[in-house]
Amino acid sequence: MVTLKQLAKELGVSISTVSKALNNSEEIGEDTVRRVKELAELYNYKPNKVALSLKNNKTKTIGVIIPNILNRILAKVLFGIETEAAKHGYNIITCISNESLEKEKQSLQLLANGSVDGFILSVAEETQINNEIEHFKKTISQGLPIVMFDRVAHDVMCDKVIVDDFDAMYNATKSLLKEKRKNIVFISNINDLSVGKLRERGYNKAILEHGVQEPLVLKIKRKKDDHQKKIKSFLKKNRTVDAVIAADSSSGVIALNTAINLGLKVPKEFSVIAFASKSDSNHTIPKLTTIRQHAKEIGVSAAQMLIARMQNLPASADVKTKIVKTSIVKNKSTL
Amino acid sequence: MVTLKQLAKELGVSISTVSKALNNSEEIGEDTVRRVKELAELYNYKPNKVALSLKNNKTKTIGVIIPNILNRILAKVLFGIETEAAKHGYNIITCISNESLEKEKQSLQLLANGSVDGFILSVAEETQINNEIEHFKKTISQGLPIVMFDRVAHDVMCDKVIVDDFDAMYNATKSLLKEKRKNIVFISNINDLSVGKLRERGYNKAILEHGVQEPLVLKIKRKKDDHQKKIKSFLKKNRTVDAVIAADSSSGVIALNTAINLGLKVPKEFSVIAFASKSDSNHTIPKLTTIRQHAKEIGVSAAQMLIARMQNLPASADVKTKIVKTSIVKNKSTL
Repeated sequence: MVTLKQLAKELGVSISTVSKALNNSEEIGEDTVRRVKELAELYNYKPNKVALSLKNNKTKTIGVIIPNILNRILAKVLFGIETEAAKHGYNIITCISNESLEKEKQSLQLLANGSVDGFILSVAEETQINNEIEHFKKTISQGLPIVMFDRVAHDVMCDKVIVDDFDAMYNATKSLLKEKRKNIVFISNINDLSVGKLRERGYNKAILEHGVQEPLVLKIKRKKDDHQKKIKSFLKKNRTVDAVIAADSSSGVIALNTAINLGLKVPKEFSVIAFASKSDSNHTIPKLTTIRQHAKEIGVSAAQMLIARMQNLPASADVKTKIVKTSIVKNKSTL
Repeated sequence: MVTLKQLAKELGVSISTVSKALNNSEEIGEDTVRRVKELAELYNYKPNKVALSLKNNKTKTIGVIIPNILNRILAKVLFGIETEAAKHGYNIITCISNESLEKEKQSLQLLANGSVDGFILSVAEETQINNEIEHFKKTISQGLPIVMFDRVAHDVMCDKVIVDDFDAMYNATKSLLKEKRKNIVFISNINDLSVGKLRERGYNKAILEHGVQEPLVLKIKRKKDDHQKKIKSFLKKNRTVDAVIAADSSSGVIALNTAINLGLKVPKEFSVIAFASKSDSNHTIPKLTTIRQHAKEIGVSAAQMLIARMQNLPASADVKTKIVKTSIVKNKSTL
């Protein structure tokens, strides 16, 4: 087995240069990094991970724990974390809590055992319901910083990245009122989640301030209801409805397709706007006007905050909460 | 710090029982596992991961490397792996290669360093294009088994789980021919991937056997083309086309919505069938007939194969390739 010392000798540089180059340190020039890595590869050099982590106490790895891999927003946040981490020479390893408190604890323990320098996570549903926070506090007290995003535990003192769900829905509803829509229905299949409730409140506030109509809400049960049937029969029964604002992409896409199926002219006589992704919007005709969450940016911000924290850059012990603003991307489903 | 020995003494069981219980061994009864874990938790017992892995050479952790977290099928496979691994008391940690050969190598190295007992992975696009396999061979020769799924490297001797892409498309095309469709176009935005090529060949075979039309193929470049425009102008120019078979869900959903937008009656005069998920199909009107990939089952199978391999259950050194069959879910976009 070749050692760092032997590599350094052969390359005519210091041991510390070799070590830093192998860890993608920004102090070392690109050329040197490449030379060091090529020689290390040639000799099949294996850094002793344990020795390394005992010595400099850095793994250059971020642990990410997400509650649900099938959630597209979470997948995109992960993509953002990955992209930003790579820029700074950090690897990420990811565990999935599957919305389970027990799995979340296990994942923290598994990775806290010398594999990572810190965590980025979104809290599991079960953890939120039970209001458990001890495992987070324990991890932080072990010297491993945590950055939480989207679903955060307010009682844990750590950096956080959240979305302005309330304002986003308030502003989107106001944009429909400006189009002179007179009977706007709020449709949601995420009413059991905290973000779903915030979005409904944003809609309510805009409607009540305006004072022309009462709030009109259609709630879909994700696992029980036939989404298409429910929206179709609602729109058939409520012929005066002239706009839909949806808290989730499924409700938005289905409402748009249903309106067209019922012969309504979109956007001339009927508008649709929804929390949705660019790809959702590219699949409908006309293209759906969307409230974008900038999930990638959430991930990028979380990674930046954690990396700064791990490098002790915020000199103070104060914690920060960053709000990533949504934006409305105007397409052809609104005037 | 409390030791295994002290825990064993207090519980009146053997050290090996404590160790096995902490590692969720199936040899130990549930009750004992619970008692051991409770006491370990009480004393805040920390297994020395390195010592453990040196001693019994087992981390009870599976490393998963996936090329792209934004791909829904891959996310579902990951969900299947997670579910099956948890059943057998295995944790999983996941790295994302982002379709990059370099990242894939890094991830293998990162995790091979004592963090996992074996790997489940789908090969990155760049790796496939460069036909690189040395890093896989190296990992296997270090005693860490690999199971590949979906995008596999045929020249690496290891267990594999694949989908019957060729047969799936052959059969789906035949089902359109049975509907007496006379001009079926194959649309794909994944023609640069091996699975995309297999799907095209399945379509070609069915069309050539039938002999009524020539193969008609529309290829979409994922990053360059305006997907909607390209499909719309194609369908406008080719008015005799009476069916679309799509290799990917975006092409399928857009083709269906475009046909309706052009005033075609689906499925009376125009059929659409696509590789897509249940949720894609639930969003269109009429609901899309789909070729389902059973992504979760792919993950479950891969996890089962790897766990068997890690426990040396296949006594022989032979490797297996498991084929997970797709199925056609008939909906209202075909006759």
